[in-house]
Amino acid sequence: MFELGVVKRNISRADRVAADTLGRFGASTVHEAMGRVGLMKPYMRPIYSGARISGTAVTVLLQPGDNWMMHVVAEQIHEGDIVVAAVTSENTDGFFGDLLATSFMARGARGLVIDGGCRDVKDLTEMGFPVWCKAISSKGTIKSTLGSVNIPVVCAGMWVNPGDVIVADDDGVVVVPAAMAVATADAAAKREANEGEKRAKLAAGVLGLDMYNMREPLAKAGLKYID
Amino acid sequence: MFELGVVKRNISRADRVAADTLGRFGASTVHEAMGRVGLMKPYMRPIYSGARISGTAVTVLLQPGDNWMMHVVAEQIHEGDIVVAAVTSENTDGFFGDLLATSFMARGARGLVIDGGCRDVKDLTEMGFPVWCKAISSKGTIKSTLGSVNIPVVCAGMWVNPGDVIVADDDGVVVVPAAMAVATADAAAKREANEGEKRAKLAAGVLGLDMYNMREPLAKAGLKYID
Amino acid sequence: MFELGVVKRNISRADRVAADTLGRFGASTVHEAMGRVGLMKPYMRPIYSGARISGTAVTVLLQPGDNWMMHVVAEQIHEGDIVVAAVTSENTDGFFGDLLATSFMARGARGLVIDGGCRDVKDLTEMGFPVWCKAISSKGTIKSTLGSVNIPVVCAGMWVNPGDVIVADDDGVVVVPAAMAVATADAAAKREANEGEKRAKLAAGVLGLDMYNMREPLAKAGLKYID
Amino acid sequence: MFELGVVKRNISRADRVAADTLGRFGASTVHEAMGRVGLMKPYMRPIYSGARISGTAVTVLLQPGDNWMMHVVAEQIHEGDIVVAAVTSENTDGFFGDLLATSFMARGARGLVIDGGCRDVKDLTEMGFPVWCKAISSKGTIKSTLGSVNIPVVCAGMWVNPGDVIVADDDGVVVVPAAMAVATADAAAKREANEGEKRAKLAAGVLGLDMYNMREPLAKAGLKYID
Amino acid sequence: MFELGVVKRNISRADRVAADTLGRFGASTVHEAMGRVGLMKPYMRPIYSGARISGTAVTVLLQPGDNWMMHVVAEQIHEGDIVVAAVTSENTDGFFGDLLATSFMARGARGLVIDGGCRDVKDLTEMGFPVWCKAISSKGTIKSTLGSVNIPVVCAGMWVNPGDVIVADDDGVVVVPAAMAVATADAAAKREANEGEKRAKLAAGVLGLDMYNMREPLAKAGLKYID
Amino acid sequence: MFELGVVKRNISRADRVAADTLGRFGASTVHEAMGRVGLMKPYMRPIYSGARISGTAVTVLLQPGDNWMMHVVAEQIHEGDIVVAAVTSENTDGFFGDLLATSFMARGARGLVIDGGCRDVKDLTEMGFPVWCKAISSKGTIKSTLGSVNIPVVCAGMWVNPGDVIVADDDGVVVVPAAMAVATADAAAKREANEGEKRAKLAAGVLGLDMYNMREPLAKAGLKYID
Repeated sequence: MFELGVVKRNISRADRVAADTLGRFGASTVHEAMGRVGLMKPYMRPIYSGARISGTAVTVLLQPGDNWMMHVVAEQIHEGDIVVAAVTSENTDGFFGDLLATSFMARGARGLVIDGGCRDVKDLTEMGFPVWCKAISSKGTIKSTLGSVNIPVVCAGMWVNPGDVIVADDDGVVVVPAAMAVATADAAAKREANEGEKRAKLAAGVLGLDMYNMREPLAKAGLKYID
Repeated sequence: MFELGVVKRNISRADRVAADTLGRFGASTVHEAMGRVGLMKPYMRPIYSGARISGTAVTVLLQPGDNWMMHVVAEQIHEGDIVVAAVTSENTDGFFGDLLATSFMARGARGLVIDGGCRDVKDLTEMGFPVWCKAISSKGTIKSTLGSVNIPVVCAGMWVNPGDVIVADDDGVVVVPAAMAVATADAAAKREANEGEKRAKLAAGVLGLDMYNMREPLAKAGLKYID
Repeated sequence: MFELGVVKRNISRADRVAADTLGRFGASTVHEAMGRVGLMKPYMRPIYSGARISGTAVTVLLQPGDNWMMHVVAEQIHEGDIVVAAVTSENTDGFFGDLLATSFMARGARGLVIDGGCRDVKDLTEMGFPVWCKAISSKGTIKSTLGSVNIPVVCAGMWVNPGDVIVADDDGVVVVPAAMAVATADAAAKREANEGEKRAKLAAGVLGLDMYNMREPLAKAGLKYID
Repeated sequence: MFELGVVKRNISRADRVAADTLGRFGASTVHEAMGRVGLMKPYMRPIYSGARISGTAVTVLLQPGDNWMMHVVAEQIHEGDIVVAAVTSENTDGFFGDLLATSFMARGARGLVIDGGCRDVKDLTEMGFPVWCKAISSKGTIKSTLGSVNIPVVCAGMWVNPGDVIVADDDGVVVVPAAMAVATADAAAKREANEGEKRAKLAAGVLGLDMYNMREPLAKAGLKYID
Repeated sequence: MFELGVVKRNISRADRVAADTLGRFGASTVHEAMGRVGLMKPYMRPIYSGARISGTAVTVLLQPGDNWMMHVVAEQIHEGDIVVAAVTSENTDGFFGDLLATSFMARGARGLVIDGGCRDVKDLTEMGFPVWCKAISSKGTIKSTLGSVNIPVVCAGMWVNPGDVIVADDDGVVVVPAAMAVATADAAAKREANEGEKRAKLAAGVLGLDMYNMREPLAKAGLKYID
Repeated sequence: MFELGVVKRNISRADRVAADTLGRFGASTVHEAMGRVGLMKPYMRPIYSGARISGTAVTVLLQPGDNWMMHVVAEQIHEGDIVVAAVTSENTDGFFGDLLATSFMARGARGLVIDGGCRDVKDLTEMGFPVWCKAISSKGTIKSTLGSVNIPVVCAGMWVNPGDVIVADDDGVVVVPAAMAVATADAAAKREANEGEKRAKLAAGVLGLDMYNMREPLAKAGLKYID
């Protein structure tokens, strides 16, 4: 949040296999696998439902009402990246639309996560370019003031370093620090393996109370049943 | 809102036929049939559109960031129930996901109404388990502090007693007290019978001004037409 | 905002061809073509996605919790109009539902823009009558206090005169003053003609940095690249 | 929330001594003494700081934009009452000002708690008539539609029965059911007696970690100290 | 809202005596005297309590994050003016602080009404320069993009023409069109004359029910008293 | 945001003189001196007006509804510190009151910045212990789940490292990274030295337009004056 006017070209991206694998599990499972941390605020919503992506973050810090740096970040996108855009103050302007999406897709981006507004949502939906944002707005922006590219940013309440893994779907957006990507992918895989069996039991009518052995701790905590 | 650590097992549910019938009319018609009362706050939104359900309420009072009581309430669900979850303070954590939904469905629940967050919305949509909530969030919860089950609760600004009828669809969530269920179902049926004829007239170009005889009261109230 | 109890019958509508044409470009392009003005607040959302309409505004000023004037405005609708409804204070009640929509459609209305609540959204979706609103709510309204019809109103932060052109789609709602309709349609057409070529270049991997000649001004503003 | 057009004249008020005593402890202590329940939503704020009151609730249910029932409830006020006003939908209009406050004071009311707007705040401050509300607004209201007086209401997320004790100060508004008033006053007195000693220890530099014996449970929960 | 890059130098200000007089009555009385219209949204709050001002509006339209036009509007201020600032999109940056206030005061401004953020609130309080705003924020702004001065603007949901009268106090901000200033001042004076007598009666215990003859219309509307 | 259950004991605090000096300039000047960065979201408000503090951050990450770690952080406070508290999800519970404040003061803390709720505000005001928070709420918390102490946190949208300088006053809360503290104090001093002269000129009626030589760039940008 502290260096304006800087573009970092060489960033260290998280392990590619881990970055790709994490998307399979989705935001909720990955968030749990990290120990229930890493989640952006729930006001971040997808512009269309059903998308689930993961990739490595390239970051951009924008000024309110100004999308100049979106063109600068485009050049820094590698295949498999997700752009994460923060703004220096609260602003819902439409920083991003179908032309920028065309450019981002051509560079290999898998999606955009922006703590601001987005427009051309019908076109973006038809193009299949997913965006998580805090508002949808036609409001145009100018190209006048410098921000930065590939510096650490706070986006929707979560710290993002360039190269971190982003996992985004209908449940929200999770950030996995690059150094934790492989371990988190393993932990998520274990969680999921576990869930199939649990799901079968619950579907058969077994109660979580029994499956998780909760009756005793509940009684100990003082839970009383009355008729 | 005042007894913590209590599970009431035997509750008196509203008339089953009335509870099932009310869903046919939808939230808006039922709300009108009750005399324009009973509606939860409009921030309660369905996780997918198109669902319309009714059923009898089993209630649960949760603590912020803690979904322990969701497992306790599961055991109290009967076929045809809808779970209504309140939280002791404002909190958008993801108290509910696909595993709990599997359990709730196996017990016969028709849906969940929660004044908090929900996750796994893609899975819930595929399972066809509708949820009305105030946020979608991956944020995981703990299992540590007691709330209560089947006590009266305030959910999204509306008082809900266990056994009351819940009607929920794309327009929102309405609560019908158990004692008023039969009368409300009758009143709703009458309203709807009425609406077909009105709709036909309006479709034919008749104005509400004339159909409802509003011209005279409007003139009396002082309405002036100018050119 | 200042005359209550008045219905203006003869209003001067914007050029019909321009009003119809503007919808083709959508809210974002029209907003840009006007010089980045004219946009309602982004809390105005469509009740279903995919609709894109334009038309001439008939306006109505409502009182909180009271939809009496909706019946009055119905009579003033001409083929190709869009009803724009403001409320004298903040209120999310369901001022509009399927019966009024039936009447509005019969009169030739293309949609409704309301700075308040809407209900019967499932029916409205099936009827194909699009509504942009700030809330969805079953809450019923009364018919008791006068507002006005076809006076200038402020709706969702934007000034609307009766006869202005409204353009609404998934990106939001834009107001084009009647006197600017033709010029704006021309400007929008030019913008769009331009965009095809740009899109092709960007899709081919050309960067906005180069296409818009941004590298020099960015350097002049002090942008530094580091490794 | 379910009976409109009704005024209940005889209500059973909580024990007067308990109702008066509870105000001494303030909202936070009383809320704790009840087992951490009974609190209205934190958006309820006093119009001026420093007031601390308690009293017995007389309740009123208003319609949006309509303060007719405020005049009806005035007649039902006894010495030592606090008026609690709910609205059937979200609305910030100025339902209450200096004239009504003059009337309420003359009837013996100690304050107003309203899930809506208030005006004339400068006059009310000078008169020393405290109000907790969700908005300050000059917006005038009409007198047209019935609500009810002295029925149970939901105000700012909390259930209030006529006769319950209300405790309100800078920290918020707490509702104590009439039947729990005496016991809660006792519990609050005990809590407070306790606090003096604790405060002295903490002021002397003793840590809560030691005073509450938290070091062992923290270690058991896995807390690690690193340098 | 539609002309950018324009400064109108000669505006027609409302009658000076009326503009000065209106402040005596305050926002709520003036709003009522206008027929319950003219009020800005209640999120507009004074930075300190107790100020009550009136004056003639000079208007300025700002761009998000940019306060360049604040310096342009300063030159257009006459003795007795109040600056009304709108922003082209939602933005809470600190557009105004003690240096600009020094300049505005030197030009004869009585206060500022801004649909955005303000800073240096401690200094402004000490200087006695009142500001009504929607946020307090240190966030600095740039000076890069043109807006306009003395064009009609929408500020906090209300239409303001340069030269209109602004009345602002602890209850909010009201706009009186220049053409209505004299008549509104007269109507407000009548309202206030009336209130003294009413207040005395209410203080003596007379009920509004009787003073306003409400018992019969309430009974006619169906109000029932029960014991 | 990523390590739970950890207390870091030895942190490197910013230069003491710089940390103390920065408070003299206040949040707005320091924010500007840093290049317009470092500011927390404007929803962070002081519980009483007039306080202006600076100090070195000790950080704590809390769980929703749980203030256990507040007791853990108390032990890590040094003379001249300010506690900065983040929460793992959005929650307005009253995590902090007069007993904890007594303990924090005894340890030498100058204030608290918390992205959550606070209570006992009357007592805290009398004690002169300033708190910046996002809500005031009596809601009690439990002591059940581990967070961390002195890890980097995101508080109200801003990254805070233990040892950073916090500057807080009526305008908001600014974070100065420890490494930038001395340079920022110098820059702030220069800014302020500059301001006295500017203020005198503006008070004498000189316009910013002239003092900052804005007329030419405005004309170049296309600003037009009309009569």
